[in-house]
Formats: sequence, structure tokens, C-alpha cells
Amino acid sequence: MILRILVVAVALAASAGATIRATDALPSESLVVTASSLGQKALNDPAAFDFVEALTTEIGQRLAGTEAHRRAVVWAEARLKAAGLENVHSEPFSFPAWIRGAESADIVGPVPQHLAVTALGGSVATDANGIEAEIALFRTYDDLLAAAPGSLSGKIAVVTQRMVRAQDGSGYGAANPIRRYGPSEAARRGAVAYLLRSLGTDSHRLPHTGALNYQDGAPRIPAAALAIPDAEQLERLAALGPVRIRLLLTPTIQENAPSWNVVGEVKGTERPDEVVLIGGHLDSWDLGTGATDDGAGIAIVFGAARLIAGLPQRPSRTIRVVLFGAEEMNFSGAAYAQAHEGETGKIVVAGEADFGARNVYSVQLPGGAAGSDFGHTLERIIAPLGANVDRRPALGGGDDIRELQKAGVPAVSLRQDGLDYFDTHHTADDTLDKIDPKQLDQAVAVWSAFTYLAAASDVDFRRLAPTAK
Amino acid sequence: MILRILVVAVALAASAGATIRATDALPSESLVVTASSLGQKALNDPAAFDFVEALTTEIGQRLAGTEAHRRAVVWAEARLKAAGLENVHSEPFSFPAWIRGAESADIVGPVPQHLAVTALGGSVATDANGIEAEIALFRTYDDLLAAAPGSLSGKIAVVTQRMVRAQDGSGYGAANPIRRYGPSEAARRGAVAYLLRSLGTDSHRLPHTGALNYQDGAPRIPAAALAIPDAEQLERLAALGPVRIRLLLTPTIQENAPSWNVVGEVKGTERPDEVVLIGGHLDSWDLGTGATDDGAGIAIVFGAARLIAGLPQRPSRTIRVVLFGAEEMNFSGAAYAQAHEGETGKIVVAGEADFGARNVYSVQLPGGAAGSDFGHTLERIIAPLGANVDRRPALGGGDDIRELQKAGVPAVSLRQDGLDYFDTHHTADDTLDKIDPKQLDQAVAVWSAFTYLAAASDVDFRRLAPTAK
Ligand SMILES: [Zn+2]
Ligand SMILES: [Zn+2]
Ligand SMILES: [Zn+2]
Ligand SMILES: [Zn+2]
Repeated sequence: MILRILVVAVALAASAGATIRATDALPSESLVVTASSLGQKALNDPAAFDFVEALTTEIGQRLAGTEAHRRAVVWAEARLKAAGLENVHSEPFSFPAWIRGAESADIVGPVPQHLAVTALGGSVATDANGIEAEIALFRTYDDLLAAAPGSLSGKIAVVTQRMVRAQDGSGYGAANPIRRYGPSEAARRGAVAYLLRSLGTDSHRLPHTGALNYQDGAPRIPAAALAIPDAEQLERLAALGPVRIRLLLTPTIQENAPSWNVVGEVKGTERPDEVVLIGGHLDSWDLGTGATDDGAGIAIVFGAARLIAGLPQRPSRTIRVVLFGAEEMNFSGAAYAQAHEGETGKIVVAGEADFGARNVYSVQLPGGAAGSDFGHTLERIIAPLGANVDRRPALGGGDDIRELQKAGVPAVSLRQDGLDYFDTHHTADDTLDKIDPKQLDQAVAVWSAFTYLAAASDVDFRRLAPTAK
Repeated sequence: MILRILVVAVALAASAGATIRATDALPSESLVVTASSLGQKALNDPAAFDFVEALTTEIGQRLAGTEAHRRAVVWAEARLKAAGLENVHSEPFSFPAWIRGAESADIVGPVPQHLAVTALGGSVATDANGIEAEIALFRTYDDLLAAAPGSLSGKIAVVTQRMVRAQDGSGYGAANPIRRYGPSEAARRGAVAYLLRSLGTDSHRLPHTGALNYQDGAPRIPAAALAIPDAEQLERLAALGPVRIRLLLTPTIQENAPSWNVVGEVKGTERPDEVVLIGGHLDSWDLGTGATDDGAGIAIVFGAARLIAGLPQRPSRTIRVVLFGAEEMNFSGAAYAQAHEGETGKIVVAGEADFGARNVYSVQLPGGAAGSDFGHTLERIIAPLGANVDRRPALGGGDDIRELQKAGVPAVSLRQDGLDYFDTHHTADDTLDKIDPKQLDQAVAVWSAFTYLAAASDVDFRRLAPTAK
């Protein structure tokens, strides 16, 4: 079905004499036909799924700063080379690595019960014997923020606000401050530790980790996420009377741990210094095997680059694949932008795949591009794949390209269906079985089409940007 | 909607002059009307959900032999009394209690990876430092059984056969020998430990526990269940080369631990020595809070008995609720049957609710009853509730009434929808959030109708049994 529709669309696009300005070497019809056939090829290409299957099987978890991540870097370099990419190398940087220790929480009163918890990334440790205190439970984050200074003195603050399920992940964005800043907000009010209902949309006893950000001027208190059924259990118990909890967390920090951003390129034939940058992150949390976050994302950009590298006629611009090395810890994007400060003017566009393994349903281009020849041409190519060009521009492209964006690099956002992404996100459940190869392949198809079109045309997103008009 | 349909059904049943032979005190039309209105009342009665909510919140897990189970016994006695049941008491017995210790498994080669496992109930411990060995992986149980004696010498046997999802739980029955007898079968062939893919239908990193049965003449080796994604990970790794695992399990056995079967009755008005026995088990596994297994089951029979106890005119026969005290360990049913050996001839019928929290879709009566006046009358009452009388007779009523059945007690089986029961069965995920109160109430409705009809009529299932004709 998709094939038939595609052929029609390609024919239409070709007969209409697609208005995109193509390079001399590639007339526009040929460019559109190539982008479309790349998409079609991707739908039947096992390479992306093979990539994430091998990564999660042969390496498993790969928390930045661990030996496993180092193994993943070596593994990834070999894969990029085997796929025909050039200039494969890893760019080192150092960062303070956070390593999980023991973690447990138990209700000690009214009656003993075990709670499923996991430390937040960056959390300080409790005493070696744990910390025991009564809880102060808040059903919304605003309730916590409304608590008076000192009112939580000696207590374990617990926030049980629910995260909303949404296809575009907006529920996660809205709830994010609860995890990032809740620990410092609770500490400012006297709390000795902090627990939140996991930022997740499931109802399993597998808590969701993720990084916190301690704020200056607030004591650093231990912080962990409760599995969702456990947060609900605390709500019920707290309604009956005082609840005491013992919390044990023994993470450690390793200063100046090494990491690497792994790079591979499809060198441009005519304008190799102009770069279309596509990436994702190789590091993962340690609880699962990082299949959807972000094994899938790097599999998608790998799959797209590999298909383009295999073309008889490669595009005129360079396609650069970057597998970032400490996204979860918020370090690799800044490290990359800093190392490439002088080059940002040459990066045509940057995109990041870090939203799971499902299909792309819309593409948000840099401002001004949706209504351009480029935007219309892209629409014709990806509509048969089940994706649209969104008329709204990309605001954020992702955590690892944010610094590039700040330096003026146009960003693209290929939006994947995230309705169930936060069921397993940052949990032990982020494993290969959560990936549907068919949907992954669709994402590769849209990424292939976009990436090729951007690299083979002479589109200048900076020129199309509304602010530049 | 249900109400409207019900009223019609009741009217039909009444006008047809329901052919069931009623007691002198209750003419048949009145009996049918009462059974129907009980069902209707159950659909809007929060008592059953309240019961399981309070049990799982205030007590939590209640593994037989633990202090938590003892608390649950006291709690349950108080609840039965408060619901208006009489003769509330607990009947003690003793059994060898199995108490979980530490449990972990890690792949040590080709590269370190953590595995989610849980010890099987009854498993012996490993050495205090764990046991490390290469695995021998079998994709079906028959493959293990086909292995030659001695061929698994020094190995950890792993069976990864999948359990089939089915509404009636038949997949669990078919796979059960893999857990029950696999450890001894592996040991006979030289294995030093045994792992199986959890008997479950989910794909989460929450392994399913459950009891094993060591067989005479085979060495007792430690045995544990792998979470389903972990079993699949081992399949992939084993296909690449040798895999070594370190397994640590430190459970203990407490001989002669005390337990209790908790009993409460609605005393019969005319024939109090004739008993309709309905039950479930109060004990649970220790990983979750035993919400669906079997908090829901005992909530259902509690809810049914409570509604009948509240009738202005109670039935002529006694309804006896039994909350068994060590079902998971396979001891309480035998203890009950032994203690009531002299009474089995007086038990009119026995039924057990131990298949989750969803709706009853069919009732299997003792042989011969489906086509009887009793069966037809029951059908008219429960059809509007969305349940049928199955023409096939009840074969097994459940683990805790099996011994009664062997002693000649007719069994009834109220079959609940179990399509997702084995997603969380025997895991940490068996928590309150998995229960839909509406479906639970429907089960109470069908149980109320059946129980009332059996207790208020003079049906003699032994007389209806095909063998007795
Ligand atoms: Zn990510
Ligand atoms: Zn992440
Ligand atoms: Zn059970
Ligand atoms: Zn069970």
C-alpha cells in the first residue's frame, strides 16, 4: 500500500518539476526520486533494528563514565566504519560521572512495607545506614512550593503529582521541574530527603530515574523516584495517619570521568565543509539496556546515514552522525558545541533522534522552511510514509543540540509518537522487546528522506528563517 | 442498561414460575427475585473494592508464615465480624514456611549485565557467595527433558519456553510443569541451578515467583525465574557464544510455622448444618501486595457473603466463607480438608475465587447441574450480568478445595476473564492499581447470585451428578 502511494507521489512530484533548487550534479527530479526511494528502502531495511538489537544485547546498559560505555564507544566506531562512514573517530571530554549504589526504601510505620525506588541521577548519598523520617506528602508540586520555609524540618518530602500522557511528550516537559528542582525546593523548606512519583505514564513497580539539578544555596539532600503504584500506596497510607520511611541511597561521583562523542561522516561530494548534523546519544541510564532511550534514536540516524552512504551518487554536503556521550548527565551537547565553536556557521541544520522507537508523524523545520520549496518537497516525499511537515517551526531540537542552536545552528525536529514512550523511559523496562521494528523503520525512512534532501539540495535554512528575512 | 435488562429477566423468570424447587419458607419466585436483586445491589456496592484496598494498603504483602500474614488474619477476622458474619474464627495449622532472602543474577561473561530474577518458592539457597557457572539454554521444556543424564553437569540450566496468553488461563496450566518440576529434571541431568523464563504473559522486568516441587531422588538445586525480557536477552546472547552467570539466592525455611484458615458464616435458618462453602486465600506472595492474587478473590466472596448476610430473610443453608492461609505454599487446602473430614458430606458445594479481579464470564456447575432446573434458573439470573452457565461441568474448583473435591464435595467454578491475569501474577506488580472496581463488582454480583441460590434452594448437586444417576 505504502509502495503504491509512494510511486504516485513521486510521479506527481517529478511531473510538477519540484521547485527545489538542486545542485548541478543532481537535477531536482532525480533528487526527489532518490529521497523517495531511500524512504522506501528504509521500510524494508533491517539495519536499524539490527543496530539496536546488537547494542542492547552485546553491551547492555552504558551509563556514561562506566566501563560499559567505553565498550559501547569502541563498538559504535566499528559499526559506523562497517556501514561505510568516513572520518570515524571519538572526541573526548571529561565530566563528573554519577554511579548508582545500593538503593532501597521501606515503610517502617504504621506497618513494614517495601517500596520500589531508584535514586535520581546526581543525588547525594544517605548515611550508610540510611535515613529514617516521617513523610510530608504533597499531591502537587505547587503544594510543596507553597510550604513555608522550615515547615518540612526533619521530614522526607514526597511529591505525588501525576504526569500526563501525551503523544508529543508535553506531559514530561510540564512535570520535569518536579524531578529537576524538587530536591532543592524541599531542602530549602527543611526536608532531609526527597521522593517523587516517577515521571512516567505506566503503572508498574519499576521506578523512573533521571537527573536532578541541585540549585545554589540549597542543601543537597538525597532524592529518589517512587514507582507509580508505590506513590499511590503512600497517598493512601498518608491519608490514614503518619508514615515513616527508611531510605538508603549510596551513589558516588567520579570527578573527571572520561567520555566521548562518537562521530562518523558521509563526506559531501561538492561542498564537504557544509554539514547536515544528525545525532542521538550512545550513553544510557543503567537500569535497563537503553533500547528506546536512546538505542533506537542512534539506530535511526545510523540507519539513515548508512542508506545514504550506500548511494551510487552521494549528496554534495557532508552528513555527520554524532553519537553523544553523556546526554543523560547533560554534558555531551555542551562539550560538542564547545569543541566545534568555529564550525557552527557551516552546520546547515542539526537534528537529534531521542524520543523512542516509534514512527515519525511530523517534521518541524527551522522557522520559515515549512512554506518554502524545501518544505513542500519534503511534504510530498514523507506524506506517503505517514508523516507531515508541521507548519510550526522546531523550537527545540533536543538536549544535545541545544548549545549548537544557541550558537545559531538551525534545528529540525522529527517528532515521533511518544504516547507510550514514558511507560518505560528511564526504567529497568527500557529493553529491546519494547521496539516494534516496523515503526522503527518508518522513522528511518523519514530521517533518510529529510537528511538526504537537506544534504543534496542547497537549502539555506538561515536564509529562510523569519528573523533573517 | 443492566438494570433494565435485569428487571425484564426477573419478570420473565418470575412469570415463567421458575421451576426450581424452593424451600417452604421461600417460594421460588421470591428466591429468584432476591438472587437477582442481590446481583444488582453488588454492581453498586463498594464493599469488595474497599476490602481489597484496605487489605493491600494497611497490610500489604502477607506471605504465609510471616508476621504480616498474622496481622492479616487479625484484620480479616475483624472485617468478617463487621460485615455481620457469625462464628468468625481462625483454624490453626502448621507448615514449613519458606522465606525469601537476597536474590540476584548477573551475566559475568561475555560482558557484565544484570538480570532480573526472583527465587521460586521452596527453592534451596545457593552458597553465600552465589554460584557461578556456564548456562545450558533450552527453548522448550521438552528440549530439557530430552537432554541426557549428566549432560548438564556443572551447568545452570535455563528454560525459556513461552507461556501462552489465554482467557481461561490454560497457558498457565500447560506451562506449570516447567516451574514445578523443571528444577528436579535439570538436577537429574547434572545441573547445579535452574532458571526459567517467568510463567507470565507480560514483557516487564518483574519476574514471576511461584512454588516449585522438588521430586524425590533428585538433588535439590537453587531455582529462580527470569523476567521475560531477561530470558529473551539470554536467548540472544546464548546464540552468540557461551554465557556465564552468577546466581545468588539466600532463602530460608522455617519448620512448623503457624498459619490459619479464617472462617466466617451466614448461619442457615432452616438447615444450618448444610454448608455452601465459598473461599479464596488470604496469604499472598511477598513481592507485590497480593491485590489480584488473591486479595480480589477474597474480596469477592466477602462481598457476596456480606450482601447475603444483610438480607431481611437469610437463606436456609449456611454460607461459610473460608480465607485459606497458605495456598501459595500448597498447604491450607489439605489442612482444611483434614480438619473437616467428618463434615464433607454436609458441604453442598464448594467454590473458590482465585483468578484475579475481572468479570465472571461463565459458571461451571458440578456435573449434571447445567441442564437442571437449578442451572436454568441460574442462567436467567446471571445472563443480564454478562455471564453464562457453561454446559461443561467444573473439573477443578481451585487449589484450596481440591482435597474437599477428592472427598466427594461438589465443586463450582466461576470463571473470570484471565486474559491479563498473568501479566502481573506472582510479581511485584500485583498491586491495587491493577483492579478495575467495576469488573470486581460484576464478579461479586455473579458470586452473590450463585451463592444465594445454592443456599436458599434445596438443590442437591450430588443427586444431579451424572455418576449418581
Ligand atoms: Zn534520551
Ligand atoms: Zn533519557
Ligand atoms: Zn492464588
Ligand atoms: Zn498465586
